[in-house]
Amino acid sequence: MEIKQLVLNKAKEAKESSRFIAKASTDLKNKIIVRMADYLKQNKDELIKANRIDVENAQKKGISKALIDRLTLTEKRIDEMIKGLQEVVALPDPVGEITKMWLRPNGMQVGKMRVPIGVIGVIYEARPNVTVDVTGLCLKAGNSVVLRGGSEAINSNIALVKILKEALKDEGMHEGVVTYIDISQREAVLEMIKLEGIIDLIIPRGGEGLIRTVTENSRIPVLKHYKGVCHVFVDRDADLAMAEEICFNAKVQRPATCNAMETMLVDENIAKKFLPNMLKKFEDAGVELKGCLKTKKIYPKVKDVKEEDFYQEYLDLVLNVKVVKNIDEAIEHITKYGSAHSDSIVTKDYNKAMKFLKEVDSSAVFVNASTRLNDGYQFGLGAEIGISTDKIHARGPMGLEELTCTKFIVFGNGQIRQ
Amino acid sequence: MEIKQLVLNKAKEAKESSRFIAKASTDLKNKIIVRMADYLKQNKDELIKANRIDVENAQKKGISKALIDRLTLTEKRIDEMIKGLQEVVALPDPVGEITKMWLRPNGMQVGKMRVPIGVIGVIYEARPNVTVDVTGLCLKAGNSVVLRGGSEAINSNIALVKILKEALKDEGMHEGVVTYIDISQREAVLEMIKLEGIIDLIIPRGGEGLIRTVTENSRIPVLKHYKGVCHVFVDRDADLAMAEEICFNAKVQRPATCNAMETMLVDENIAKKFLPNMLKKFEDAGVELKGCLKTKKIYPKVKDVKEEDFYQEYLDLVLNVKVVKNIDEAIEHITKYGSAHSDSIVTKDYNKAMKFLKEVDSSAVFVNASTRLNDGYQFGLGAEIGISTDKIHARGPMGLEELTCTKFIVFGNGQIRQ
Repeated sequence: MEIKQLVLNKAKEAKESSRFIAKASTDLKNKIIVRMADYLKQNKDELIKANRIDVENAQKKGISKALIDRLTLTEKRIDEMIKGLQEVVALPDPVGEITKMWLRPNGMQVGKMRVPIGVIGVIYEARPNVTVDVTGLCLKAGNSVVLRGGSEAINSNIALVKILKEALKDEGMHEGVVTYIDISQREAVLEMIKLEGIIDLIIPRGGEGLIRTVTENSRIPVLKHYKGVCHVFVDRDADLAMAEEICFNAKVQRPATCNAMETMLVDENIAKKFLPNMLKKFEDAGVELKGCLKTKKIYPKVKDVKEEDFYQEYLDLVLNVKVVKNIDEAIEHITKYGSAHSDSIVTKDYNKAMKFLKEVDSSAVFVNASTRLNDGYQFGLGAEIGISTDKIHARGPMGLEELTCTKFIVFGNGQIRQ
Repeated sequence: MEIKQLVLNKAKEAKESSRFIAKASTDLKNKIIVRMADYLKQNKDELIKANRIDVENAQKKGISKALIDRLTLTEKRIDEMIKGLQEVVALPDPVGEITKMWLRPNGMQVGKMRVPIGVIGVIYEARPNVTVDVTGLCLKAGNSVVLRGGSEAINSNIALVKILKEALKDEGMHEGVVTYIDISQREAVLEMIKLEGIIDLIIPRGGEGLIRTVTENSRIPVLKHYKGVCHVFVDRDADLAMAEEICFNAKVQRPATCNAMETMLVDENIAKKFLPNMLKKFEDAGVELKGCLKTKKIYPKVKDVKEEDFYQEYLDLVLNVKVVKNIDEAIEHITKYGSAHSDSIVTKDYNKAMKFLKEVDSSAVFVNASTRLNDGYQFGLGAEIGISTDKIHARGPMGLEELTCTKFIVFGNGQIRQ
């Protein structure tokens, strides 16, 4: 069969199954997820064996150590997946929640009810844990999933999906709720993202290149973020000790993440006082510093920052430092160079805090906290399927609620249109 | 200049202006809208003069009477636009609303705040009133608009937009908040919908053909409904007098609208009792009836309904009638043939009412009320920019709230990621 037809058949199966998972009770959905966790536990050896084939193939291909590390399944990693599923079981079910209800003058009650989106397509790289994490979240929110992981993980993913499907079947649910596109060719992804009307939403997870390819070719709505160019602005009215701790955490705690700080903006009124200690601390932690002219005057050891650096997502221990005149210049800078991901102000001044919250148009805007906290777990959503910097549906970490939409419901007693 | 460049320049102007309208206070936005209404009032003659050119051109081209009627501006129609703007002034501003806020164990307050979407592109047919209605709603929700109306209305729209821009300028707001693509060529639309990253959302309004062209070619998210194939299901436990009134209203009150009923589904247990009166009443109102075999047995005068009829949006006094075994068959039918727009059940049975509400996946689901009530005004949203049957962002009538998104805000006091 052609790739096109194979992908279409799988997506259609997901679509047909979506009606059944959409109306499943919370109890049933939880039972399925618990069973998935149980079956993972029972099949650890088999999973690790399947994964070993992927890892060996990857090693033969000379794939980088970091990628092989992400690809590798260990007992500990399987335990983490199991724990992830158990956490999803514990989260409240968003489906059926009536978020608002109001009475109209003609006596009808109008409300908005959360409903599943339908079929969610997730495209990701060679990280088998994503297969399980994403399935748990989408299923709890009443959706079917069509999964397509990186081709290097194909044996691991096929083994995982087999187990997930068994759990569905054994709870009497349609297996099509979890569907995996087990075709290595890139063409499969391109066919998948054309299936408007069958798949309802595409969530790509991975590097900027993957996400751009998906977004540029998709006929289905896509929720994603390309990159995280995040800022901390240290205002003249900041508690400088707090600012030092927040900036250090935002850059150093885990620099390879999308919510790590890439540029530190410092108000010129406190730059002389703040920068020497702060930059020394960064240097001691091995951070490569690039500074503007004013920064260099205060701390000559920094390299020159170029304009294009301000657009960079380093994902590494590299930091741009810029001294700005005031909060307006800071917001201007964030608006121009930022990626609308995570931005923070450190200040004791009420008005500036509120101004920053209002005017910075990012997925999460922080006052006196680290950008590293932009995360589903940290925010209490329980888990996240990704972070959106898009303009519609949802910005920021997307948890169960963001995997639903709302419809209008009306309780009438004979109302007609006059 | 090339069309491509002209469209790009206009959209960029809208994008630059969007930051300013996004942070404008409710007072300022209301002042602008009031001024727009005032200037419309002061310039009625000029508007009607510009419109006359469009109408005369349309008449020369031999355009249909119905379309010319929609194109024509009268004093009454301008008064309606003014009234529409005044109503938008009276609506609460959605921007800045904090919809939720919760405390995390580390002491930070996390919330979701409504924010404008940014730049909204609206593509519509030759109805000049849409220019004003859409502008009022988008602006109140803090968005810029890029408008593209049907080419037959170009003189009217240019005259209207000139007035709207004057109001913006006179209140000290960037004129780019309202931008009109005054290029008749269809190419302009195709260029407009490619501007991903500049225009944030496209809302097409008009016939199914226009909407399909826009959706198929857009690189920007689109919210729309293609058509309304709406149903009323008369359950065996219905109050039959109420059912008669609701069905009659749903079909006859204004058949050319998207929320009018196209197929009436009747439980076989009450079909014999319900159909004769009901169908007679429809006939007397000039409704052409197409029925299934069971319907024909009860009321032989109806024509045969064909399967393809069930997919039809008649927009006219034509109705399909189908007798079904029970609620399950009714929901099955709606799922298969419906357009996820507006569907209603008439029943006195609590369990069936709740089942229908839950399992019918339409933008608005009614119990004991007419589908004709699926409308922003009727639901109390104040006004609507359109109805969405899409799966993400919003389903149903889209008012001010649906013209916003939410971002996360965090009030911290030094929190870092552990």
